[in-house]
Amino acid sequence: MMSQIVEKLENIVGRDWIITDIDQKLGYLYDEVEKTLRPKADENSIVVKPANTEEVSEIISTANDNGINVVVRGGGTGLCGGAIPVKESIVISMERFNKVVEVDLNNMTVTLEAGVTLFDLIEELDKYDGIGFPVHPGDEGAQIGGMAVTNAGGARAVRHGIMRNHIKGLEVVLPNGNILNLGGKLLKDNAGYNLMHLIIGSEGTLAVITKVILKIYPEDKHVATIAAAFETIDNASNAVLEILRSGVSPLAVEYQDKHINLETAEHLGLNWPLETGNADLMIIISEKEEDMLYSSTRKINDICRKNGCTEAVFAGKKQEQADLLAIRSGGYEVIKDIIADSFDMCVPPASMPAFFEDLGRIMKEYNTTTNITAHIADGNVHNDTVLVDGKIPEYAEEIKLKMYEACFKYGGTITGEHGIGKIRVEDLKLQKKEEELEIMKGIKAVFDPNSILNDGTVV
Amino acid sequence: MMSQIVEKLENIVGRDWIITDIDQKLGYLYDEVEKTLRPKADENSIVVKPANTEEVSEIISTANDNGINVVVRGGGTGLCGGAIPVKESIVISMERFNKVVEVDLNNMTVTLEAGVTLFDLIEELDKYDGIGFPVHPGDEGAQIGGMAVTNAGGARAVRHGIMRNHIKGLEVVLPNGNILNLGGKLLKDNAGYNLMHLIIGSEGTLAVITKVILKIYPEDKHVATIAAAFETIDNASNAVLEILRSGVSPLAVEYQDKHINLETAEHLGLNWPLETGNADLMIIISEKEEDMLYSSTRKINDICRKNGCTEAVFAGKKQEQADLLAIRSGGYEVIKDIIADSFDMCVPPASMPAFFEDLGRIMKEYNTTTNITAHIADGNVHNDTVLVDGKIPEYAEEIKLKMYEACFKYGGTITGEHGIGKIRVEDLKLQKKEEELEIMKGIKAVFDPNSILNDGTVV
Repeated sequence: MMSQIVEKLENIVGRDWIITDIDQKLGYLYDEVEKTLRPKADENSIVVKPANTEEVSEIISTANDNGINVVVRGGGTGLCGGAIPVKESIVISMERFNKVVEVDLNNMTVTLEAGVTLFDLIEELDKYDGIGFPVHPGDEGAQIGGMAVTNAGGARAVRHGIMRNHIKGLEVVLPNGNILNLGGKLLKDNAGYNLMHLIIGSEGTLAVITKVILKIYPEDKHVATIAAAFETIDNASNAVLEILRSGVSPLAVEYQDKHINLETAEHLGLNWPLETGNADLMIIISEKEEDMLYSSTRKINDICRKNGCTEAVFAGKKQEQADLLAIRSGGYEVIKDIIADSFDMCVPPASMPAFFEDLGRIMKEYNTTTNITAHIADGNVHNDTVLVDGKIPEYAEEIKLKMYEACFKYGGTITGEHGIGKIRVEDLKLQKKEEELEIMKGIKAVFDPNSILNDGTVV
Repeated sequence: MMSQIVEKLENIVGRDWIITDIDQKLGYLYDEVEKTLRPKADENSIVVKPANTEEVSEIISTANDNGINVVVRGGGTGLCGGAIPVKESIVISMERFNKVVEVDLNNMTVTLEAGVTLFDLIEELDKYDGIGFPVHPGDEGAQIGGMAVTNAGGARAVRHGIMRNHIKGLEVVLPNGNILNLGGKLLKDNAGYNLMHLIIGSEGTLAVITKVILKIYPEDKHVATIAAAFETIDNASNAVLEILRSGVSPLAVEYQDKHINLETAEHLGLNWPLETGNADLMIIISEKEEDMLYSSTRKINDICRKNGCTEAVFAGKKQEQADLLAIRSGGYEVIKDIIADSFDMCVPPASMPAFFEDLGRIMKEYNTTTNITAHIADGNVHNDTVLVDGKIPEYAEEIKLKMYEACFKYGGTITGEHGIGKIRVEDLKLQKKEEELEIMKGIKAVFDPNSILNDGTVV
């Protein structure tokens, strides 16, 4: 089937922008989901690299006319298999959509082609003194289109929220090839159902995002990082709740098990400055004025001490802060080879201490452990179940269900930021009523009646 | 038809909670849209007042089974006829959904039944020192459910955004009577398509909102108001752009034609302190620290002077500020009887000076005037065309189209905050491509296959 379509695609993008060779293709068929978990890609899929929206439109309508599945690939940094073509597909790589179209300082917006990476966006905004974009989901190789369609989160949601809060406009291509412009540089827009907010978080199943308009903001000039050690995760999470109640608005509040921080520091050849306790917080503070930075720091320090903090360090220099962040962000590297399953649950922030207790109890029940990293102030936990003798343990499914049960008890969700992708489609049925899933399927059919966009994802 | 249904409704809510008498009904059949513009209500409609979600579910599924239209009525403060039953309908008044279910200071959320008014919410939060909800669409009689389903805006969007930004969870009833809980007290949730954000702004056409979870926030302690006069609207809007660029983040930046301020002050028996110029800004500033308040005030004052401000007053006392706001908010009362048509267009903030110039040019062309009130920093303009000899002038439609054309030139929308309702259904076709409207209709059919929810609204 694909051989017939290659010629059509060549006519659209030119021979140089199609990859059919398996070795070259391989880099386009998987995302960052763990090898133990990831579904197998259909290697008959072909990769195509359009240059502009019109070419995307032609590719998609060709696929639609021929009933061929389409998977859009951004930076490949996803963690739920959303970009893996599990059936024979045209993989549209957005890498040529790499232009910053406009930085508009009057409206405080930036207009980007969907393939611009977060790294490129940050670099571009650095040219404008004191202007920034606040969402940062860790991997700067992420493309803005992917960040939009997955509603990416990250460490700074506690103050700045998620992608949804900052997307003002989208250019999208529908499965039939129609191009729509949704939203714009508007602060208010109530003209009909908001299709833009529906596409945000739809993981490439409703439309292809080709352009994104984001809000940009004046950045705080003064930034510091506090690392604080606690005896237990319970102490640490109670400290966080009190910080949130205090009126201080930290930029990020990150939790990581001490052993992960220590191992990661060693792995990176860096030093993690806290030796005591088992539970570490990393709190980033930013303020407009230097005075405010120190007053916020003092407040946070006092609250940590009150909640059983055993030691804390203050990092004001850029490099010191970067090192701490590198250790926090690098944690995944040192545990990834022992992961049987990994999670992205989110509960109301105030339920974190109780939820952590539940997780501990469940692990004890199975005589196993879990590695915990968390955007703790957001209520968003990344933990895992671990391999036993290099294999996924028999109880893996059972332990997952028990964790979900605990999560749902607090009104939580199975995915705070990573999404459903292909690995949580069955799990979604545990969280959502059949009636809600039916509506989602109905919406999918309205946008994509032939179900050619990323089949097998979300619903 | 209705006589047969009354008995069924009586069995659900009890006889005391149904209104069939025309005189009693009249207060439930219209919203605040101007009499010259409002569509006629079908007076055969009956009003029913359910006490809880289960009763709403029963009423709606009864209506669905019998093919009867349902219109949900909140505070009746809408400005586009959304709550007017233009065909024979069951009007569900949400007034008994008046309980504040929970103020959760740990998660900083408030859970409300949909019929709680903004006034009641503010009063409730006043019990908690320094906690508030930021969205304020002017009329405190608005109910929270209505504010959610219309994605209400108001004067504070420049800093705090609109309802969508603060809604965390909804309980909704679908046309078939199914009850769904969407979202929750979560800061992050990527589990499937976001139906909550689709229902926000859907104006009662997809589902009935019965409960709302909102984020609440620490409130700034220090508030002041600056009123500043400018010779022309062009000067005033340039000053606003420079304020927005300066890094000061005002709580609200409101524009009103001087003559409206003067007439409203007289009407209310208050004093508008600015005599010179034709164009008045009212800027509300709030800050955590008193120092910051004065530093922001100085910055704003300097920028105003630089942009041709002829005089300015600073109001620090609560009563002084309340009087200024009352004059700004009361403007509509003194012009409403001369309005032929009124508008809610929104353009990118930086396009405001050019858009105001366009409006002036168009009015000159027709030898008429327009009264302008604007959430100017949001790019959201409320202006009108005026009656001639007490009648809608012949050119009314033509002038509207010319204004829309100017608005679209800047990527604007015909409605920034009021919504489509029943009065802009035709106008929406001028803004949206047929393909986008078709998707909206498809979504409507997924939620409401028998089209019983607020037929004739939005799409």
